[in-house]
Amino acid sequence: MLTNAGCRTRRDRLWNALENRPDWILIRDPRHLMYFAGYYQSPFEFRSSNAGAVLILILGDGGSSTLVADNLVEGFARDTHVNEVVTPVWYRGKESARHREAMLIRSVLDHMRNCPGRHIGYEASQLPAGIIEGLRKTRGSIELTDVDPTIHQLKRRKDPDEIELLRISIHAGEVGQAAALRNVRPGMTELDVFWLIEEAVQRAAGRQARLYGDFVSGPRCENVGGPPSDRVIEKGDLVLVDFSVIVSGYRGDFANTLVCGAKPSDQQRRLHEACIEAITAGEQSARDGRPCREVAAAVRHSFQRQHLAENFTSHSGHGLGLGHPDPPYLVPDSTDTLKSGDIIALEPGQYIKGIAGMRYERNYLVTDKGLECLSRHALQIDATV
Amino acid sequence: MLTNAGCRTRRDRLWNALENRPDWILIRDPRHLMYFAGYYQSPFEFRSSNAGAVLILILGDGGSSTLVADNLVEGFARDTHVNEVVTPVWYRGKESARHREAMLIRSVLDHMRNCPGRHIGYEASQLPAGIIEGLRKTRGSIELTDVDPTIHQLKRRKDPDEIELLRISIHAGEVGQAAALRNVRPGMTELDVFWLIEEAVQRAAGRQARLYGDFVSGPRCENVGGPPSDRVIEKGDLVLVDFSVIVSGYRGDFANTLVCGAKPSDQQRRLHEACIEAITAGEQSARDGRPCREVAAAVRHSFQRQHLAENFTSHSGHGLGLGHPDPPYLVPDSTDTLKSGDIIALEPGQYIKGIAGMRYERNYLVTDKGLECLSRHALQIDATV
Repeated sequence: MLTNAGCRTRRDRLWNALENRPDWILIRDPRHLMYFAGYYQSPFEFRSSNAGAVLILILGDGGSSTLVADNLVEGFARDTHVNEVVTPVWYRGKESARHREAMLIRSVLDHMRNCPGRHIGYEASQLPAGIIEGLRKTRGSIELTDVDPTIHQLKRRKDPDEIELLRISIHAGEVGQAAALRNVRPGMTELDVFWLIEEAVQRAAGRQARLYGDFVSGPRCENVGGPPSDRVIEKGDLVLVDFSVIVSGYRGDFANTLVCGAKPSDQQRRLHEACIEAITAGEQSARDGRPCREVAAAVRHSFQRQHLAENFTSHSGHGLGLGHPDPPYLVPDSTDTLKSGDIIALEPGQYIKGIAGMRYERNYLVTDKGLECLSRHALQIDATV
Repeated sequence: MLTNAGCRTRRDRLWNALENRPDWILIRDPRHLMYFAGYYQSPFEFRSSNAGAVLILILGDGGSSTLVADNLVEGFARDTHVNEVVTPVWYRGKESARHREAMLIRSVLDHMRNCPGRHIGYEASQLPAGIIEGLRKTRGSIELTDVDPTIHQLKRRKDPDEIELLRISIHAGEVGQAAALRNVRPGMTELDVFWLIEEAVQRAAGRQARLYGDFVSGPRCENVGGPPSDRVIEKGDLVLVDFSVIVSGYRGDFANTLVCGAKPSDQQRRLHEACIEAITAGEQSARDGRPCREVAAAVRHSFQRQHLAENFTSHSGHGLGLGHPDPPYLVPDSTDTLKSGDIIALEPGQYIKGIAGMRYERNYLVTDKGLECLSRHALQIDATV
């Protein structure tokens, strides 16, 4: 769970990053409810798992923080790092319930009656339009500041409490990769592989956690990725698993590719070694202050030395955290620069039509002192050793 | 998957239900992207699993339907029932990507340049405010019509293609209930129960599917529900499982309560029988045109006859579909009336502090000819038979 100190620090940072400070900032993006208040909209709870917004976070210039929600999520809302929680009754099993999200809009507008000021910060791409329409109606003209771009930038630098959640996610992912390496057998479907990894990662996380990513085999690996299908895995097939485990919104993301039920061919071993060398080249290049296109170039150059660059049709890596792929982007024409506090993935691969598709990936924290490798699963093509 | 004919019918119904027809209707709620276009925002795909909106559906008064998205979800967007798909490049592994949701807003506004008209229908509680702000800026004054209440009402009546998805979800849930009845053992944790059900329901659905609900045991059952914990289940404990399996957004929702590793006590059998009688009473009352409070009263009256009404602290039932709990509400002061096309759950329970907590639940389709029972799992307290 994110800490109270962490959430406060992030709210302060948001206010300090805004040149023209609004009177109030309204937050709806579930990722940002976690980031600024520690609220996790669990997908495993009927009370909060519907698609609509069920909470709005209202931040005041004076430091106040209020979560507006309803009685169904009161327990979760109270378990957050805010000054105030407002949870009017939406449904209590006695009367017909109203339209839930419409009630949330009204509750926010009711609460805002005691929040004077015409300058509103909002997430232009996330905040329900009904809130802004309601504010305009009662206040006459309002001035709007879109806080989306600012939050998008702030999120790159991870705080210690965020890194802690990422470590839990990454540990669960490592256990999932080990389970795949040990248990994938000819005759299983790709869905079977997904399910065996899902059980392993949730047991490792010790909680319900969402797993998503690429689970492909045989020729499907040549398409870089995809969801698991009912394709039956044959002896000697490549199996590419590249997945994330979401823990309180945060996710690591790393890959391995193995040969199922047989020793890898010489060509497969050669491609695997080239990918590992490319990761190493990326690791040696990546550091605080380095332009991301240089890291991408280092990865590509490693393949070029072996005349394999044309098979590297995916990207070198990307940022991670509450989203995926997030900045910074480790790509040829990147305009990003690596910064201390970035969490990144390096994921070189080789994709050759009719022959092979494979990818290997690790996660890292960029620090002032260098690159800290966060994921330590085996980057291993031979599942028989 | 929803059908093209079904999506067209629902769009026509929406237009016909609006007295003052707007020039355009903008849809963002993921539930409604499914309902009107057959687009499922899979939680298992990194391309679409982020919390932000990645698609907007634009409906035109002339019958047009356009999905605005980006290249990452192009494949999914093309697999929907719309006339036009707009997917500009957000990220292709070459350049740094922009803020994704902000780009979506700009893409929608770009597209709308060719969509004249000042009267806009919108989901007040869902559509990003940035879209409305952008439209107002370029069009001067605009007239807004909130389509949320209309869609909320329309969704109650389920179409054949929706019922088909609900049947898949319900079948998977039945398999999950059977797996619990057969496999729950003393020494397991509640999380173990969740995982064994999760594997069973996904295998039955033959696809990745999200499972959520209540998985509680022993004294935790007395609190009606809750997420699974690491509580170890002891011999003789009650185990209450009440869950939904989401298939393309649609979910059934039904419960069973069993005694783990031992024969039920006489008191437990008596409470179980009372719950089954209460379900039967609800089934006999529920029909097209009946006020929902009368169905709730029939369930309560069944308990009253056995002097058990005071232990029935939860509701009698609710509607189901793309959300949960949805209208109609089977509660004492309900203002809803059952209608043909409703999908409902009946879920009487008994909760006695220090003694027991149990609930049994089935799902039904209300038709002109009567109530069709959709879920056929065993409502069985004795797991040893």
